[in-house]
Amino acid sequence: MITNSTPDMTKYPDLTFGSLRVGDKFVLGKHLMAREEVIAFARRFDPQPFHLSDEAAAEHAVFKRMAASGWHTAAVMNILVGPFYERTSIKGLAGGGVEKLVWVQPVYADDMLYMDMEISEIRRSKSKPHLGFITMRVQAHNQDDELVSHMLITGAFETGI
Amino acid sequence: MITNSTPDMTKYPDLTFGSLRVGDKFVLGKHLMAREEVIAFARRFDPQPFHLSDEAAAEHAVFKRMAASGWHTAAVMNILVGPFYERTSIKGLAGGGVEKLVWVQPVYADDMLYMDMEISEIRRSKSKPHLGFITMRVQAHNQDDELVSHMLITGAFETGI
Repeated sequence: MITNSTPDMTKYPDLTFGSLRVGDKFVLGKHLMAREEVIAFARRFDPQPFHLSDEAAAEHAVFKRMAASGWHTAAVMNILVGPFYERTSIKGLAGGGVEKLVWVQPVYADDMLYMDMEISEIRRSKSKPHLGFITMRVQAHNQDDELVSHMLITGAFETGI
Repeated sequence: MITNSTPDMTKYPDLTFGSLRVGDKFVLGKHLMAREEVIAFARRFDPQPFHLSDEAAAEHAVFKRMAASGWHTAAVMNILVGPFYERTSIKGLAGGGVEKLVWVQPVYADDMLYMDMEISEIRRSKSKPHLGFITMRVQAHNQDDELVSHMLITGAFETGI
């Protein structure tokens, strides 16, 4: 279904909610921002001219050529988070929210994005000990190793208790 | 292209960067979270079972039936921001980032979302006076008038100087 994504394949079968630590870092994988996907996303969700053709982008103050919608990049940064937890023994329940999402550099059509993440915060619900929250800083770098976007997201997880 | 969105039609021809005020509120319009769009987004960007069928969602702790990806809702909340500024005399340059994005309630297939926004902060660049930044709180309510999501986003604009 998601043909442009390649998740990292490292398995962490012993990693549980209880053994995860703030500062732990993980490679998520990569995603090709294929030109046709950039256009398809923009058509449906962000139809500004500079997301739809190189010609229109050439007149833009920031973009030199057709650039992906920042919301496309955000969705792509999230794609490999779920599959990461499937490679662990931590069971995800739902996305909780986003504390920060920054678009640092334009993402251009056919860029390859490399995603990794670092654990920023871990907490257990006081009233529901079986429920916990993990805050992650997810980063995307392009093929030139430039940081293009980062976000701080929180998800709800089973603590295993 | 975006067949499910209906922007508000009110025009603000006299509204400029200089006359916009913190606390100003605007109706953005509405967007139907059509079932086929919910599935199409999830297939490509967030293929968790509860975003793809009612049957899989029935087993989920939070969702009662097929729910839209939170990233789909976020993209939809952004769709009508650009068209709003086109109804004013304020010229947008680029999205700047997201300070907060909260998913309050599930968004279900075929929900109608009503978007509005309030101006939270306005500032001019000190080094480049022709450039300014507007921070907006965008909200989405469903057809039952429940707040389903809100976000605080900042965009770069021409100040007209």
